[in-house]
Amino acid sequence: MDKVRIIDVKRSVYEDNDKEADMLRDELKEKGVFLLNLMSSPGAGKTTTLRQTIERLKDRYRIGVMEADIDSDVDAKKIAETGVESIQLHTGGMCHLDAGMTKQGLDELDGRDIELAILENVGNLVCPAEFDTGAVKNAMILSVPEGDDKPLKYPLMFSICDVVLINKTDVLPYFDFDMDKCREYVAKRNPDAKVIPICAKTGEGIDDWCAWLSEQVDEWIGR
Amino acid sequence: MDKVRIIDVKRSVYEDNDKEADMLRDELKEKGVFLLNLMSSPGAGKTTTLRQTIERLKDRYRIGVMEADIDSDVDAKKIAETGVESIQLHTGGMCHLDAGMTKQGLDELDGRDIELAILENVGNLVCPAEFDTGAVKNAMILSVPEGDDKPLKYPLMFSICDVVLINKTDVLPYFDFDMDKCREYVAKRNPDAKVIPICAKTGEGIDDWCAWLSEQVDEWIGR
Repeated sequence: MDKVRIIDVKRSVYEDNDKEADMLRDELKEKGVFLLNLMSSPGAGKTTTLRQTIERLKDRYRIGVMEADIDSDVDAKKIAETGVESIQLHTGGMCHLDAGMTKQGLDELDGRDIELAILENVGNLVCPAEFDTGAVKNAMILSVPEGDDKPLKYPLMFSICDVVLINKTDVLPYFDFDMDKCREYVAKRNPDAKVIPICAKTGEGIDDWCAWLSEQVDEWIGR
Repeated sequence: MDKVRIIDVKRSVYEDNDKEADMLRDELKEKGVFLLNLMSSPGAGKTTTLRQTIERLKDRYRIGVMEADIDSDVDAKKIAETGVESIQLHTGGMCHLDAGMTKQGLDELDGRDIELAILENVGNLVCPAEFDTGAVKNAMILSVPEGDDKPLKYPLMFSICDVVLINKTDVLPYFDFDMDKCREYVAKRNPDAKVIPICAKTGEGIDDWCAWLSEQVDEWIGR
């Protein structure tokens, strides 16, 4: 597919990832680009949620998507179908992205006047939480089949996210997932995190999520 | 709960994990201990599958379980309820276990004449695949809600596993999961991997899995 460009990102030369992430955020602020870092377990629904998000927001913002994957380009192809700029970042086996790798991706999107850049991180609840990518906001998806106890088991991920989307609410009847308990566990890790139940398949809750995201983007780019 | 002992495992002093893993396997062979390394994404059903496995095999083997987790002791408590020896390994934020950390756990189980030791690795499809724990066999669980395309996205994990359990078959009607396609993708990564569909919740397929596991254990311990 012509639209999918694959970028092999390399580990940053900077030793200090936090410093580089702060520098990247400053640069993004100056350029008027909002960067969202989207994280989750494998198969929680990042790509489907992104497609729904793009459908609703592509007339409002110029959107660019960076799909991080160890090897394949399955997701970048799916995103390219929505018509927005999409690139694939190959991490070469790495389990996360750092600020330097994210910057390499953003440089590839540069020149297209992107206002909302979205990074779909590697499917992993552990390592991506340890590396600041330079994003303005961190979002994560927890899907119903994974269970309501995940904030207890992967504390760092939940503590660094500004918003937690609880996806696949359509299958709630078939799983022992207690939404109230889950909200309680999330709050325990991060009292400031906003929790939004969604179903990326049916579109339920996506308006709420997009309203939250638009608010953050508008504030950042000064619209 | 009295039965749950929590061990803070530390990164090994050995630089060469592969060498240490081989040494551990030799030691296990000598002692007549079979070590299974069980991996999956967060929430794929490792603990529930283990409970079913223990119920069926605890009269056949002396079983010891090591539950690796970043922080909590939720899983070790659930395993302790089955009556087998269970310890919790805290990785202190680490996303995987190496052979040295595994050995620290096994040392804690030592003296109990364990024949089947099971390591429940950290929920993660990336990093645990990169570190040989010294296990005799590697097993992984892919759950239906994660999607049939995971072997394409997490190639290393599928290539190093001897057996792939496809869990949560009870919810197949509610997800777009193509079992034949999944088998095809697994075979692409690893033609020798055995694929066993199971439902840890209902017990479906667990007999097949336990038959496979018993065969491996018997061969290793020379029963």
